[in-house]
Amino acid sequence: MPAAFELDRHLLGIEGMPLARIERLLALAAKFQKRSPPRSLSGKRLLVLFYEASTRTRTSFEVAARRLGAETVSVTASASSIEKGESLLDTVYTLRAMVIDGIVVRHASSGAPRLVADHVDVPVVNAGDGMHEHPTQALLDGFTILRHRPAIAGLKVAIIGDILHSRVARSNLLLLSQLGAEVRLCGPRTLLPVEFAAYGGAVVLTCDLEEALTGADVVMVLRIQMERMRESFFPSEAEYVARYSVTRERLRAARPEALVMHPGPMIRGVEISAEVADSPQSVIREQVENGVLIRMAVLHELLGGGSA
Amino acid sequence: MPAAFELDRHLLGIEGMPLARIERLLALAAKFQKRSPPRSLSGKRLLVLFYEASTRTRTSFEVAARRLGAETVSVTASASSIEKGESLLDTVYTLRAMVIDGIVVRHASSGAPRLVADHVDVPVVNAGDGMHEHPTQALLDGFTILRHRPAIAGLKVAIIGDILHSRVARSNLLLLSQLGAEVRLCGPRTLLPVEFAAYGGAVVLTCDLEEALTGADVVMVLRIQMERMRESFFPSEAEYVARYSVTRERLRAARPEALVMHPGPMIRGVEISAEVADSPQSVIREQVENGVLIRMAVLHELLGGGSA
Amino acid sequence: MPAAFELDRHLLGIEGMPLARIERLLALAAKFQKRSPPRSLSGKRLLVLFYEASTRTRTSFEVAARRLGAETVSVTASASSIEKGESLLDTVYTLRAMVIDGIVVRHASSGAPRLVADHVDVPVVNAGDGMHEHPTQALLDGFTILRHRPAIAGLKVAIIGDILHSRVARSNLLLLSQLGAEVRLCGPRTLLPVEFAAYGGAVVLTCDLEEALTGADVVMVLRIQMERMRESFFPSEAEYVARYSVTRERLRAARPEALVMHPGPMIRGVEISAEVADSPQSVIREQVENGVLIRMAVLHELLGGGSA
Repeated sequence: MPAAFELDRHLLGIEGMPLARIERLLALAAKFQKRSPPRSLSGKRLLVLFYEASTRTRTSFEVAARRLGAETVSVTASASSIEKGESLLDTVYTLRAMVIDGIVVRHASSGAPRLVADHVDVPVVNAGDGMHEHPTQALLDGFTILRHRPAIAGLKVAIIGDILHSRVARSNLLLLSQLGAEVRLCGPRTLLPVEFAAYGGAVVLTCDLEEALTGADVVMVLRIQMERMRESFFPSEAEYVARYSVTRERLRAARPEALVMHPGPMIRGVEISAEVADSPQSVIREQVENGVLIRMAVLHELLGGGSA
Repeated sequence: MPAAFELDRHLLGIEGMPLARIERLLALAAKFQKRSPPRSLSGKRLLVLFYEASTRTRTSFEVAARRLGAETVSVTASASSIEKGESLLDTVYTLRAMVIDGIVVRHASSGAPRLVADHVDVPVVNAGDGMHEHPTQALLDGFTILRHRPAIAGLKVAIIGDILHSRVARSNLLLLSQLGAEVRLCGPRTLLPVEFAAYGGAVVLTCDLEEALTGADVVMVLRIQMERMRESFFPSEAEYVARYSVTRERLRAARPEALVMHPGPMIRGVEISAEVADSPQSVIREQVENGVLIRMAVLHELLGGGSA
Repeated sequence: MPAAFELDRHLLGIEGMPLARIERLLALAAKFQKRSPPRSLSGKRLLVLFYEASTRTRTSFEVAARRLGAETVSVTASASSIEKGESLLDTVYTLRAMVIDGIVVRHASSGAPRLVADHVDVPVVNAGDGMHEHPTQALLDGFTILRHRPAIAGLKVAIIGDILHSRVARSNLLLLSQLGAEVRLCGPRTLLPVEFAAYGGAVVLTCDLEEALTGADVVMVLRIQMERMRESFFPSEAEYVARYSVTRERLRAARPEALVMHPGPMIRGVEISAEVADSPQSVIREQVENGVLIRMAVLHELLGGGSA
């Protein structure tokens, strides 16, 4: 099974990932939470190549790698640091020549990590690619839910916001569906792609926030990118807030103890009220901590020999 | 005394700092200068979070932390790296979740380090906040004076330049006054806030450079920010140079061996002549070296157990 | 011989470098390729100070230093990180005060590394200065040729492109001439400085690509900077491609197994066709790997005691 082997060598997306691997990574992260992690990446060097700025995700990967004993080389692309006109692959070849044991890549183009993986002989981790996938985010979200609920199967998960442009929504939909959740995608019609209904077993699309929240066990709020507003995906920030901002009143439609999640960075008062973000139901800060554990699990699996 | 306890947990400013703590930090820095420092921060991770760029101060903290055995995670905020719209506290919570043992923060808003300290459970060091304080700069300046003079009490210290906007001036005024110096603040009238007279025991404000320099034991020249000129705080660079630039001729008013200091970055020919900056009286380069020692003392006190 | 001593303390350029030193560095890099390098820089701290962005070169120096056991402090200058108005020397003095054992510097001004070397008491390595020199690039290019050919003496080396602005061309001309190669410099007349003929023993200048390539053993393609086109050094990109782009057809004029080199970053389809860049004759990726080895040799010689 060369395709499956290939999938195991890299972490490029949730799509097509065997259930056994998802469960193995979640179990490994839980193990790292309980006891002191092994120095399984000692002497290894990880290239962290970000073509889109993200302090949060980049730092999370760096800290995860260092906790396992690896050294990191971070390259953040911008007009000033990656030379203009040079192709992604030439940049990767160049940095690969510095003797690198693995590559974490974030890029604005969907498929860029796959392209890199096809041309290097070291493991590649997708840290977010365009509107495609953000697999470690979905894994950490699944892990966070499992810290509070015995299983994901049977849970009702509402994902609210800009579904269309969100790789977080896409990866979560794929992961949570595979683990047996009912996923409800909710946002303005212009940001709600009907083809997403085809992804999972139990997917509901709705523009009605109350419908999405009713009886939900988990409420996952997405980042709204203000620039979309100007692109006429919806009329105005005020209108978005009026219809989709997750406030304490609206949250009453969900189950009493529903978990509130947000991948960050969060804009209080737009996507979510400060009251909800800071409520006892919110596991937003915990998501970040879990991000390090999941990335440790992924790096350990790909670069550390796999056993813990 | 919860307030004093709180003060000892962090380093947020010179204001309200007990004399005993100032003396302890100065003594610790002197100890680190004489003998090889302990690895008292071994296994600790320090977050260096700069919302204002400063190669000098950031590097100084990083080198200080590493000499004591700590690992540093540096995050320099800018349009590209800290996501727009996210609050300072959410950014701190995020980075805190990476498991951090202490935070060094620089921010354009006065009070930002205090805000951070109120919401995290690790020590916070103020590396400069708005027009408020820059406590490690004042400590290193005091330390530098003490390398050359037996005591600060009784010294006449002239601080020259943009007093109004200078957190360096404010922190130094507080520190040097408490240690018994006579402090003279000198600059254009629009940059000389009368309320500063209330800070110390022996503070003199004057717009006359010759008056400020006469008999001075220490001449501390501040950075002039060119953008202030455009904001009509004073008419022109030429006029500023004509009245306040510290030249060899003007320095004759001070005591013959008066120490010349500048917190950097220094613009030769504007705030200070190249001749004065490079003269044997100048301890400007030494200030930088002492900055590492003082930051080692601060980090050791807050994160390293306190005994050396 | 104080001048020679000075040359041995730093690496500022190929000009005036004794043949014995060139050969020693090449031999040292070959040794590092064969066996595991010594930890000869253990406990040392290298300042990597880049006033021009270059992910490739900066990372190469950092990786080289760390492989020998050194710690690196990287400072990339830009509007935001090095304060405006401060002189290069004051910045260097500041960073020097952090206790640094060596400095690698890249700067847009020719002669900047020399200026730094004249004012600090640690070894300085030129990582590219203006239109002057880029000595480690020439050394790695020479090293790369020697991986494939028994000697450089007698080889015909064509260097194609913007000769005028290229410190790579200049350093390679000096190095390859001294090692006995015949060097042909080829580019548009406006980018081909006649005074370069005076540098070496056997230098040919020509605007005719076919003439330059005929019988060449090595074809070294340079980066064309698009901004030069606008400065009327030549009419248009299309015209440049038509006359100087190294394609498979044109390469037939060279010797059958001629090596193809490019210092990167490479723009496929402009300076060189993708077909040529990826052909078996191309040693472009190998150049990058060799860059780390050569920089290890240089750092080991200057900071590590010299014997391996």
